Order: sequence, then structure tokens, then C-alpha cells
Amino acid sequence: MSFNTFGRLFRFTTWGESHGPALGAVVDGCPPGIALSEADIQPWLDKRRPGTSRFTTQRREPDTVRILSGVFDGRTTGTPISLMIENVDQRSKDYSDVAKAYRPGHADYAYDAKYGFRDFRGGGRSSARETAARVAAGAVARLVVPQVRVRAWVEAIGGDAIDPANFDDAQIDQNPFFCPDAEAALRWETLVDAARKSGSSLGAVIACEATGVPAGWGAPLYAKLDSELASACMSINAVKGIEIGDGFAAAALSGEANADPMRPGVDGPEFLANHAGGIAGGIATGQPIRLRVAFKPTSSILTPVETISPTGEAATIATKGRHDPCVGIRGVPVVEAMVALVLADQALLHRGQCG
Amino acid sequence: MSFNTFGRLFRFTTWGESHGPALGAVVDGCPPGIALSEADIQPWLDKRRPGTSRFTTQRREPDTVRILSGVFDGRTTGTPISLMIENVDQRSKDYSDVAKAYRPGHADYAYDAKYGFRDFRGGGRSSARETAARVAAGAVARLVVPQVRVRAWVEAIGGDAIDPANFDDAQIDQNPFFCPDAEAALRWETLVDAARKSGSSLGAVIACEATGVPAGWGAPLYAKLDSELASACMSINAVKGIEIGDGFAAAALSGEANADPMRPGVDGPEFLANHAGGIAGGIATGQPIRLRVAFKPTSSILTPVETISPTGEAATIATKGRHDPCVGIRGVPVVEAMVALVLADQALLHRGQCG
Amino acid sequence: MSFNTFGRLFRFTTWGESHGPALGAVVDGCPPGIALSEADIQPWLDKRRPGTSRFTTQRREPDTVRILSGVFDGRTTGTPISLMIENVDQRSKDYSDVAKAYRPGHADYAYDAKYGFRDFRGGGRSSARETAARVAAGAVARLVVPQVRVRAWVEAIGGDAIDPANFDDAQIDQNPFFCPDAEAALRWETLVDAARKSGSSLGAVIACEATGVPAGWGAPLYAKLDSELASACMSINAVKGIEIGDGFAAAALSGEANADPMRPGVDGPEFLANHAGGIAGGIATGQPIRLRVAFKPTSSILTPVETISPTGEAATIATKGRHDPCVGIRGVPVVEAMVALVLADQALLHRGQCG
Amino acid sequence: MSFNTFGRLFRFTTWGESHGPALGAVVDGCPPGIALSEADIQPWLDKRRPGTSRFTTQRREPDTVRILSGVFDGRTTGTPISLMIENVDQRSKDYSDVAKAYRPGHADYAYDAKYGFRDFRGGGRSSARETAARVAAGAVARLVVPQVRVRAWVEAIGGDAIDPANFDDAQIDQNPFFCPDAEAALRWETLVDAARKSGSSLGAVIACEATGVPAGWGAPLYAKLDSELASACMSINAVKGIEIGDGFAAAALSGEANADPMRPGVDGPEFLANHAGGIAGGIATGQPIRLRVAFKPTSSILTPVETISPTGEAATIATKGRHDPCVGIRGVPVVEAMVALVLADQALLHRGQCG
Repeated sequence: MSFNTFGRLFRFTTWGESHGPALGAVVDGCPPGIALSEADIQPWLDKRRPGTSRFTTQRREPDTVRILSGVFDGRTTGTPISLMIENVDQRSKDYSDVAKAYRPGHADYAYDAKYGFRDFRGGGRSSARETAARVAAGAVARLVVPQVRVRAWVEAIGGDAIDPANFDDAQIDQNPFFCPDAEAALRWETLVDAARKSGSSLGAVIACEATGVPAGWGAPLYAKLDSELASACMSINAVKGIEIGDGFAAAALSGEANADPMRPGVDGPEFLANHAGGIAGGIATGQPIRLRVAFKPTSSILTPVETISPTGEAATIATKGRHDPCVGIRGVPVVEAMVALVLADQALLHRGQCG
Repeated sequence: MSFNTFGRLFRFTTWGESHGPALGAVVDGCPPGIALSEADIQPWLDKRRPGTSRFTTQRREPDTVRILSGVFDGRTTGTPISLMIENVDQRSKDYSDVAKAYRPGHADYAYDAKYGFRDFRGGGRSSARETAARVAAGAVARLVVPQVRVRAWVEAIGGDAIDPANFDDAQIDQNPFFCPDAEAALRWETLVDAARKSGSSLGAVIACEATGVPAGWGAPLYAKLDSELASACMSINAVKGIEIGDGFAAAALSGEANADPMRPGVDGPEFLANHAGGIAGGIATGQPIRLRVAFKPTSSILTPVETISPTGEAATIATKGRHDPCVGIRGVPVVEAMVALVLADQALLHRGQCG
Repeated sequence: MSFNTFGRLFRFTTWGESHGPALGAVVDGCPPGIALSEADIQPWLDKRRPGTSRFTTQRREPDTVRILSGVFDGRTTGTPISLMIENVDQRSKDYSDVAKAYRPGHADYAYDAKYGFRDFRGGGRSSARETAARVAAGAVARLVVPQVRVRAWVEAIGGDAIDPANFDDAQIDQNPFFCPDAEAALRWETLVDAARKSGSSLGAVIACEATGVPAGWGAPLYAKLDSELASACMSINAVKGIEIGDGFAAAALSGEANADPMRPGVDGPEFLANHAGGIAGGIATGQPIRLRVAFKPTSSILTPVETISPTGEAATIATKGRHDPCVGIRGVPVVEAMVALVLADQALLHRGQCG
Repeated sequence: MSFNTFGRLFRFTTWGESHGPALGAVVDGCPPGIALSEADIQPWLDKRRPGTSRFTTQRREPDTVRILSGVFDGRTTGTPISLMIENVDQRSKDYSDVAKAYRPGHADYAYDAKYGFRDFRGGGRSSARETAARVAAGAVARLVVPQVRVRAWVEAIGGDAIDPANFDDAQIDQNPFFCPDAEAALRWETLVDAARKSGSSLGAVIACEATGVPAGWGAPLYAKLDSELASACMSINAVKGIEIGDGFAAAALSGEANADPMRPGVDGPEFLANHAGGIAGGIATGQPIRLRVAFKPTSSILTPVETISPTGEAATIATKGRHDPCVGIRGVPVVEAMVALVLADQALLHRGQCG
């Protein structure tokens, strides 16, 4: 099947392909009366826009968003908000040989196996271009939960991690890697440049923190915050892992080492640790929500790889089309958007049931 | 909110608390004509049943399942299948002091923050006892996709991992740890015994493999197999991380090292690697589906931990109630069940759209 | 498919067959802290219970409900509420010949066509017995919207309608027909007795009114109150028509005759008419919500009817099993339940989006 | 809440307001490989287009549809199909006084009560213009179930009904009323002209028949065909009633008179009657599916009606804006679209569960 809608009360549906005329999102269930204009959305799109540095794909897309419905006199009306972004810089010729052979690691073979047929231009629907629509919807979600601050950054590229001791929030927007560690950012320049020049690619780990989430948001059992966040992040292209709080590290700990003790605080409890990433029993504890997401290296590389053709013959393919040497970098605003979208939904759900 | 239903076409809804009279699942959307009796479900429940070894909680529950609807003349009718398991060995007194103070790391505080009120007996709805209902539903799911084999095991306990070189499928059911490495199983006896005796607890990593999944199952974009599996596993108590294929390890690789080359095979392509865990673009490639799940150590420990009372006073709590020194162990049949439930749903979804 | 769940935030799932061991409902999404016990549900079940007068089926079912989960210390916890009703008085032998030939007008042939197989005992899943589970869930829904009063009655049986001039709310519970017109009730005794004795059956029209619904509930566009109410009522066995407000009569009116003028009232507008049945644009106006539901006569009649056997041979069938001469009568509490369930859901949805 | 998505597997989401820049639909879950171009959709839009005769609103909209995604090389890809229709002939000034007073019978007051705010231009989201998006989506649905023929017509206007004896399918497209009775069509010219000239409006009854629906489609219990069709039709602007088969007339019949006897036929049973409208137990019997829908007269009339202003003062309003004297007429293609959308969804659901 195809399920292009995400969310339960605050829902969005995305549409569009890499080389179609446009792509977009329809946001449904947004509360009424929220001030909204393109200017509230564009900055987030600019953050993920391609072609902004030599470390991202050279495809040049303005990613200009238009609001086609759901807003009147500058405020949301409670009806669906249609957001559209036109594609401008498609170069379908770049992808001609993708029609002749499957790119291993990409969705090419799987889509053909499922649908018997695919739009091979730039990966069609499976292209990361679709994430522009998520970022646009995410910008609306942020306005639904203004008390929440969602912030993501790159924690490691190709296995080279930041030094937590160097963490500086102010650095994140000062370099093309969303890197909070100035020294790591310098190392990554060399690292990503090398990958780019050799036509290779690198994986990355993104970390995200959401502060201001009140205790109580979350929906046991199958819409636990952990579940919703995992589902949201795993739906992002190239994501292959997610951890809430300490994640896999917690699996190596004892109960004593993993405890999050509480003591009376000014309003609500003061927590002495946050191994659980701000979620217990699927419900927010009021602590910062913390998660980490693993992006695999893009499978678009210049090195020829063994593969087969749609008709089953042996072939090799080298991806020449423009692409990101490290897709994880531009994953930062996308992870932020998905987390914001989950939290906006949970906010409405909580109010719906618990008033 | 409370969302106790999982799935899109093959759906199940669970209900029940740790110390209520019973718990159960209603399976809806199951295809008709499938031979089904309690005997098809009971073995899977027995696999997760408590009190089977000294390494699990000493609560003794027969976990006998009854089919109350949806089956006629030994076959499914296509209508909802109601499965019920009665609780037998509740000892609510064990949990009396849980009413007086929140157990850090448990859902106690979060449930109160959300609902203003909670069933504190054995964790109420947030108890891992609910997973019995999932295992029962999962047994039905297995019958919907008989071509698929879902198999999970424990890969590490408290940071002590198996040696892949020792992997022996036959070993998994030969020890109380679902451990495929006989040597590791011996080490874990000592490890878990020590934790049990000291009233401590240990985290664990579960690995799961599903073979026989045909290429094409999966549902872009927000019901990608990766997403559905992540959502399903993250909804299990104590789970804090999930990886598909190489997961976080892939984030440290280059595109060349992470490639899954293909060459012509007997039927469909032969893959030379499986870093992606059998899923590309959210759709199955026909390779084995591989995932890993991180279970945190249970927060139920004898060591007193700083906490607060429902009225906000400082307190300490030590959990005396019967519990698992390593909840991850009994997570094995639960992970298997959730994976089977996702695959049964995807099988019907694929047939519905692409049939 | 099989979709046995209804609702969006306040959801219920029903299960069970006419001749299975039990049937039930799982209510999910109910707000926490609501006082609830079996005593709040039983009276509504008693209202639809069979065998209470000679005008309903002689099957004798106590329809005793048990709450198996979701309630602690006499209050809802916000987690799923499992309600179970055991079947006591099944007489499967009565239905033996239903296995040999399809009862025209019943679901027999259609279920076989869909599922290739059916539980023919008393109609299995398609039996009106399932509505007991709806009435139990509806009793919970009423407690979620205590400001709302949902009241239904029989407006016509076999084409013999009440005289609006005789409408007396107090009469409704004074006769076995839920009839607000004492004179009509007398006529119906003769009418229904005749049908019962001749083994015939009669259709009926049920009217329902919900007062206390605040302006603003409702969810454009595809969850309009009109749509949700229509969907809810059309899902009841034997229902073949629904009207909101004037319904089909409005189709014969001019815009002037159909207008619902407003003038300033004490709080909000005072309406001078209610042709629209209290709903405009799918949203409640604050007026009483009014609807009418058409129940066809049950197809269970003594007169032999031409039919075919599952193997396609010509046959005739006369239904001897116990049944209602006029199913519409016992439809009254069922319509009330479905309306209450829709309104509880809409109340939570409205709070969720519009706070 | 706002729920602008309809369907379970074959789903569509609509967006847009009467006076916004555009409106559209996103169709998700459509099977792959279906030949689709704008030319397959435009004829159905032309059928409901305004300004085609003096009997419909004089607003002139080309209603030209564009396919923005989901189609490649002229075939559906299985990914979301985005359909957009630009608004051309908005005259917002016409609606200025709608801002100052609520139009009784319209959604004006209810939307304000719900959202505290509304787009009053032409009714904003509650305008029947939204149905253009449904018709576009419905055109895609027809291609999903090519074996099904969905055909609707006007059965009565302002209480003046056709004579069944005069029914002639060929006539339906020969007059501006979709009227199968040539004589009635002539009478309606006078009737609707009079209403139009006096600035009045008339209600209408639409009948719809779907042939070629195989026995077995439908989804008990809460997605019964009756329920889905009722929900779909009741979501159309101005619809206040729906009947399946004989509907309310059946409520006046005896079981004998309402029976649909069967006898062995060439393939499957031959039915001797179709009181049930082709649906038993919520599942298609293979007979033609028959339903009737009641459209109220539009509340837009020249006669001043008592009302109130958003600030609660007494006012009167007469609707001068361009509108349909009988909205039911243009409801014909909309009812057809909704029925086709329900059947496409049920076709996929049936295949998903019953293969």
C-alpha cells in the first residue's frame, strides 16, 4: 500500500516526486486562529534547501512555498492547509541510466518489485526531495506547540563524532554541518570534501532534543511517544536506526546505573538524570526529550557496483547524478520537522482525552 | 490519548491490567478460512510465560488463552477474534508502597501526570503483562503469513554479547536466555544470577530475523516497513532503541562499504550483502529482514532510589515486588510477535493495493 | 474487510457471535476519572434485553455485563475498558436448516460470497445480538457527555405512525414499544401480535433527539455530524435509511419554507425553526439534534421463501428460530447508544482541535 | 476536528476554499499501472461545472484539472496522485455582507461557533465548490473498478417526481436536470425557472445505481456498504437523508412484502426482487446497488430572513451572490463520485482480506 498521511489529530499528507512539476503537503486538523504565512515556513525550508554549500547536492531549488488553503486574514481557519513547492531544477537526463539498472541500496528494485513499474527520475517518490514537504508541514506544527523548542544537530559523520565537552549550541548554525563542535566541524570539512571529490558518501548520526514538552503528553500503548517518534524518524529516507535517551547504551547498564531519580522541584519533580530521554511508559515526564537517529551513507556513489537490470541481466552502475555526499547533514531540519509534527499531534491528542 | 489498537488491515486491540481479572486482544481483519485453535496460540504464550526459570519473575501465571469469537468449525470466519487470558497469581499487597511513591523509570509519575490517577497495582496498564496479549495476537499473525519465519534471540545481556562465530540456531531453545551461543549462555547464568540475588537488573539486546518475506511488501512513505517495525518494537515495555540492518553501524560507513550489490539469481536477484536489513525505500527486497532492539534494565531494583510521592514529598523507594532481573529475556517472544503482526498487516496491504 | 472498530478518539471495538460463548466491546480513548461501574451500564442493556415482552424474541438472555479492565477504584483510568457479556440461552439446533439454505434478506449468502464460509448459528456475527455490545459501550459514552440527553422512540410500526399531537415523553417507557403516543401503543399491540402469531414481521421508524449538544461539535468535511450519525445508524442491523432533521421532506420544500431563522437569544442565538436537525455544515448549531432511522422488517418469517442452498440448488426456507416480530422496537436503545457514541467522540475531537 | 480524508485503503484528501487560489484532492492508495491522464478526469468535472445552463449558478469556472504527481508515462505509479483545480471566477465582493450577518441554514454560524472565526468568502471551506475535488478523485476511483458502472439522476425537484414508467436512461444526459423522464424535465424547466427568477430555491432527490459490483464487497460491521455509502453521501453539502434500496418505504412493509427471494441463476443466484438495494448484512449481494439521497433547498434566497450578526445583534439577510436555484441538480456527478470512491475502497479492502 501507499500511506502518505502521518498523524492522528494533527495530520499531514505529502505528495510529489523528485522530477514532477511540484510537491506538497496538506495539513489537516490544525487548530484555528494561529497566525500563519509563508514567512513562517520559508526559513525552515531554506535550512534544508539543496545547493547551499559544496557539501550538499548541487541541485538548485529555491523551494519557495505557497499556502493554497486553510488560512484567512493571516490566521489558520481550522480547515486543511495546502502547501505547495514547485520543482525548478530537474535534470532528468542525469538519471537516464537509472532506468536501465537498479541502484543497489536505493528503492529502485523494491519499487519495481512492488508496483511492477516506477518513476525512475531522481528516485521519483522515494527521493529525499519529498522531505521538503515534511519540513513545510513541520513549520506549521511548531506554531501549534510554541512552548516547545525542537533542536537537532549532527553528532557524527562517517564515524567521526563530536566531543560532548565541546558542545556549543551557538555553533550549530555557524557551519554547513549543523555541528555544535567547532573542532569537529573543521575535521568534517576535510572528511566530506574527500568523500565528495571521490564520489563517495558518508553516514551520519543526528541528535535531537525537544524542550518544553509538558509531562503527560503521549498515548499508551501503540502511540507511545517512543513509538511515534521512532515511526516518524524511520520514515525519513536513509534512516536505519533510532534511540530514545540512552538507547542501546542503556541495554549495557544495570538498573542502578540507568535510574532517573527524582526529588521535589519548584514545579513538579526535579530529575537527577535523563537516561530515558524524557519518556516513561510512552508518556513525557517533563524532562527534555532526547533521541538519536542513524542515517546510512547514500547509495549514490561513483564507484561502479554490481547490480541487475529490470529484465534481470547482470549490470554495473555508478551514480553520476547530483547528490549529497552526506544526506545526514540535510537530515537535521527533517528530523526536527518530524519531531515537531509528532509533538503537535500528541498535544492535541492529550487535550482531546484529558482536557 | 490512549491508542490500544495496532495495524491497518490486520489490526489488534489489547486490553487489561497487571492485576485485573484478565487481559486480552481482539484481532480484526484476519482472513477467513485459516485453521485456528487455542493449541496454535498456547505454545507462544508458554514461551514468554513468567516463572519458568529462576531468571524470570516468580509470578506464576498459566497464561491459558481462550478464543471467544471469530472461529467456527476450527477455522477463522473473517470476523473479530477475541482472545482472553485470565490473571491468576496477582499479589496486590506486594505493590502497596508503589501507591505512596513513584518508581523512577517506571510509568508511575507519567501516568499520574497524564491521567491524574493510576492503577498502581503491578504497574496497571503499563505492566509488561500486557505483552501476553500481543503474543497471543502474534500467534494468529504467524498463521496469516505461513511462508514467513520470524525468529528472535538475545544478543547481549548487560553489555556481554554473544560471539557471532558461535551462533547456533539450535541453541536458542536450549537455554533459559534464548541465547544462540552456548558459551555466552553459561556466562549469562552467572551474570543474571548475580543481578537477581542483589536485586539489581540488566539491560539486553534482542536480535530478530524474518525470512520468507517476498520483495514488495511495505508501504511508502509513512508506513515503510522500517517505520512499522520501529513503531511496533518501540511500543514494547522497556524498549529504547531499534536498528534495521546495520543501523547505527551503517552511519559510520562509506557508501562503498554499505552497498548491497545484486547479481542475477535463480528467482529474482541474488544479493551480495544485507546492510539494509532486507528493506530498501521502506519496501522488502526479498532478503531476510534483520533488526535489533534495545531493552533497558527494569527500573524495579532493591537499591533504594530517591523519588517523590504523589503529593510531592521527597521519598525513597526500593522495589520488592516479584520482577524480572532482565526483562529483555522475555522480550524475545514479544519482539517476534510484533514483527509477525507487522508482516501480516503488510501482506494484506500489499495484496489490497497491488494484489 | 472486517472493521469492527468505530470512532476516532473515543473508539469502541466489538466482538462476538450470536452463539459463541460471549460477546463484548473494548472502549478506548475514554477520558480518565469518570465514575463507572456495571451498575451504570446494566440498565441500558436491560432496556434492549430480549424476552422482556411477548413482542420481542423469546430468547432469554440476562445480558449481564462485566467490566474487565480500565476501571480502578470505581473510576476510569484512561486505558481501554473491556466489557463482556456472556451468552447463556443459545439453541443452535433451531438454526440447523440455516446451514442448508440461505435466508433471503439475511447476511447468509453475502457472508458466504465474501468469506467462502460462515458461522450460521443464529446469524453468527451478523446477528442483532452484537448490538448488546454497542449498548454497553454507549452507556460509557453517555458518561463522557453528561450534558447531553439522548432519547429515542418508535415513531411508526408497519406504516402505522404516531400522531405528533399525542406525543408524550412520559409514555415512552410505559409500553413495550417505546411509543410516545398511548393510542398508537394500543394499536401496535394488535398489529405486532398479529404479525407474531402469523410468523410475519414488521418494519419500523425510530426517531431520536439529542439535547444539550453545544454549538461547534462536528468535524468537517468527512466526519460531519450528519455523516458520522448516518454511518453509525446504518451500521445497525436492518437499518436501511436515515434522515437528519426534515430529511427527505426537506427535498420537497422551497428555501423559504426550509429556513431556520435566528434571532438574538439569552446565550447564543434563538432559532425559530429546526429543519436542519440541529446541524449546519456538519457542525452542531446548539439546537436539538434530530434524526429518524428506518428499520426494515426482519427477514425471519414463517412463510416459506424461494432461495438456494450453499451448493446452488433451489430450495425454500421458513425461519422457525426465535426472533423479533419487529426488530425496530429493540432498535431504540441501540440507536440511542450509537448517537451517544458519536457525540462522545465529537466532544473529544472538538476539545482536541479547538480546546 | 477537521477530517478531510475519506477512505480506508483507497483514500482521498481534499483541500481548498470557494475563494482561495485553488482547490484539490490527493488520492492515496491507488493501484499502480492504471492508465490515467487529465482527459480521464475532465469530462466528469465538466458534468458538474457551474455556469453550464441558466438552471445553475452563473459563476463561470473552467474547472481545469492538473495532475501534479503519482502518474508516470501515462500510468499510475501507486504513489499519491495530486489533483489541482484553480479558482478563476471569484467575486468576493458579492459576499461582503455575509461577513456582517450569518446566513441561516448555511454553515456560517456553526463555523464561527466551532473555530471562533471563518473564511466568509463564498462560504469558504463549506462551499459546494469543494465537491469539484471529489468529482476529480471519483474519476480516478472509476478507473480502479472498471467493471462497475455508477449512474445517478434526479428523481424529484421541489416535490415533483418523475414517473417511473417514463424512465429512460438515454434521457438523463439530454436535459440540464439529469432527468430520465422527458416530461418531468419539461415541467422542471418551468419550476426551476420560477425559483431562479424569484430568487427562491428548491430541494431535490437524487437516485443512484451501481451495477457490476460483485457479491462479497463490503466490510462488516462498522464499514458496512450501507454505512460507507451513507457516510459518503451525507458528507455532501445540503444532503439531509439517504436510503439504501427501499429505505423508509421498507419500514412500512411486512417481511413477506420485503423479501428478496433467490433462485438458481446462470452464475450465482438470480434474485426475484431487490428491496435491500443490493446489500445484505453490509455486504454486496451482486445485485445492483441502489440508493436515494435527499438534497435540501439551498439556504441562499433573496427573501430576507431573520438572523443575527457575529456580535449577536438582530439582523436580516438576503443572499444576492450567484448560486444554484437547485443544488441537487449538480449533486448528480457528486453522488456518483462518492459512490465510486466507496466502491473502489471496498474493492481493495475485499482483495486485501479475502484475496
